[in-house]
Amino acid sequence: MAAGERDFITAQLAPLADTAASRGLADDAAVWTPPLGRDLVFTHDVLACGVHYLPGDPPSDIAWKLLAVNLSDLAAMGAMPCGVLMGLGLSVAEDDAWRSEFTAGLGRALQHFGVALWGGDTVTGLAAAVLGVTAIGHVERGTALARSGAMVGDDVWVSGSIGDAGLGLAIAKAMAPPDKALLNRFRRPEPRLALGRALVGVASACMDVSDGVLIDADRMARASGVGLVIDIAAIPLSAAAALRTANDADRLALATAGDDYELLFTASPGADIAARAGRTPVTRIGRVVAGSGVRAMGNDGTDITPARLGWEHRG
Amino acid sequence: MAAGERDFITAQLAPLADTAASRGLADDAAVWTPPLGRDLVFTHDVLACGVHYLPGDPPSDIAWKLLAVNLSDLAAMGAMPCGVLMGLGLSVAEDDAWRSEFTAGLGRALQHFGVALWGGDTVTGLAAAVLGVTAIGHVERGTALARSGAMVGDDVWVSGSIGDAGLGLAIAKAMAPPDKALLNRFRRPEPRLALGRALVGVASACMDVSDGVLIDADRMARASGVGLVIDIAAIPLSAAAALRTANDADRLALATAGDDYELLFTASPGADIAARAGRTPVTRIGRVVAGSGVRAMGNDGTDITPARLGWEHRG
Repeated sequence: MAAGERDFITAQLAPLADTAASRGLADDAAVWTPPLGRDLVFTHDVLACGVHYLPGDPPSDIAWKLLAVNLSDLAAMGAMPCGVLMGLGLSVAEDDAWRSEFTAGLGRALQHFGVALWGGDTVTGLAAAVLGVTAIGHVERGTALARSGAMVGDDVWVSGSIGDAGLGLAIAKAMAPPDKALLNRFRRPEPRLALGRALVGVASACMDVSDGVLIDADRMARASGVGLVIDIAAIPLSAAAALRTANDADRLALATAGDDYELLFTASPGADIAARAGRTPVTRIGRVVAGSGVRAMGNDGTDITPARLGWEHRG
Repeated sequence: MAAGERDFITAQLAPLADTAASRGLADDAAVWTPPLGRDLVFTHDVLACGVHYLPGDPPSDIAWKLLAVNLSDLAAMGAMPCGVLMGLGLSVAEDDAWRSEFTAGLGRALQHFGVALWGGDTVTGLAAAVLGVTAIGHVERGTALARSGAMVGDDVWVSGSIGDAGLGLAIAKAMAPPDKALLNRFRRPEPRLALGRALVGVASACMDVSDGVLIDADRMARASGVGLVIDIAAIPLSAAAALRTANDADRLALATAGDDYELLFTASPGADIAARAGRTPVTRIGRVVAGSGVRAMGNDGTDITPARLGWEHRG
């Protein structure tokens, strides 16, 4: 370990690791007593500079997004998050100012989500930053949600609004007129943790929307051995996105953009989803049918499924 | 996610993820029921191409080392490993042949260590490979080893032999005459998992030697609020390393080289360490004294502590 890494860890990361499990980041590993009667849920996602975020993005927003995309995976399983480990691979571009802003933002995000920093690793000298997080959560034994349970006759639901982050990415790249709310949806997604927990025992299948609602619906359909029909006109849009949406082609663009981090789920038509969702907005956007894969239906009932279902980053 | 990433995951990684917890890598996260009465132990280490391994290293050895360095952290805590999540950041240099060799080696290493692949993330399009692993293990509640328990009067022990990997690195860089055994110690370290578990309840402090036995002894001393005196002549050398070692200066070079992944631990002089260690070679190399930090003693009893205590990679 280089001296600069040691200083960064002791001066900036260790103060954030303030629970017993982290042992002050001073041991070889974290130690944690799991809660009784719970299954543990583990996920690991990587954000690479230039691939998943832009070099000029505010460091505090990068820290937020790094946590949020991982917690979104826990939300999709109905899990309550408890701790994270971070693998921070940094380049010279992540200078002292960047690191200070990053750790300040990380501290705020950890507090916001009620998650402890348990440990990790920091390496420097990379060509470009690569940031990984492992998030650990728990769920009542045997109740974790899955993508594979959608059944013919179920309704298809999605939380919040779709496509904002795709518009936000275009704004971040200066390819669309500015809008602070849309930009924020790209940079600071809100994992649907409360909704995920509320859907345990009710949703027949659940996943988070990371690569576009259509491609993710296709994955859910294939995992469940069914077809999902999505009514494109029913896909919920924010007011800001609706202003930029004139027709089905615009709606398809939003439904094939990534980074929404909403929950896509299915449930029996008899389930009182609105009551379960509480304050989280949810919208019925389609139904589960016999078949395989996703189909997008236009306003006039015709099949307008695009060839490209979702977002694929370079590489 | 890019199409190539999806293919790599389904064709090459998913077959390795053959336990229920991984859910075939098809869900957003892994789900695992922890064993009753155990504390969980978590660690995350990152290996970067060009920093922690060389671009020409065999991909199967890189996979081995990636697992081994993480499992070594679990060994240091006395934990039994059970699962891993991997964050694979790849560049164009990691082509199809590289990926096949990597996953084949990874499969063999997982089997060798008896560890399950639970999940992770793969991203492509990086400038150079950055590979992260989170390893999860468990230990009887309240018994995890720590660096901070060394007590004045304890003996200082180390497992195996020290300095082989440092010589192996020089060989890998063609800066020293070839020797297969030494090269292997650099490329395929063996985490001391059995020894770590055997030391639970006996070692007063324990850590793994990753940056050099002197700098790591210094860290243990500071974490414990004591001094560690290391008898340089007592540091165990392999036969191959001994052949390249003429004097205290050579021994200091080995004691300040990294990547040993042996266990450094302290225990009361009354403890029957040899009986606990079983087949794992262990050597008494010093003692715990009042004071602060590490001191290296030469053959004639003089203080030969070097200014630079251990290995610092670039960055």
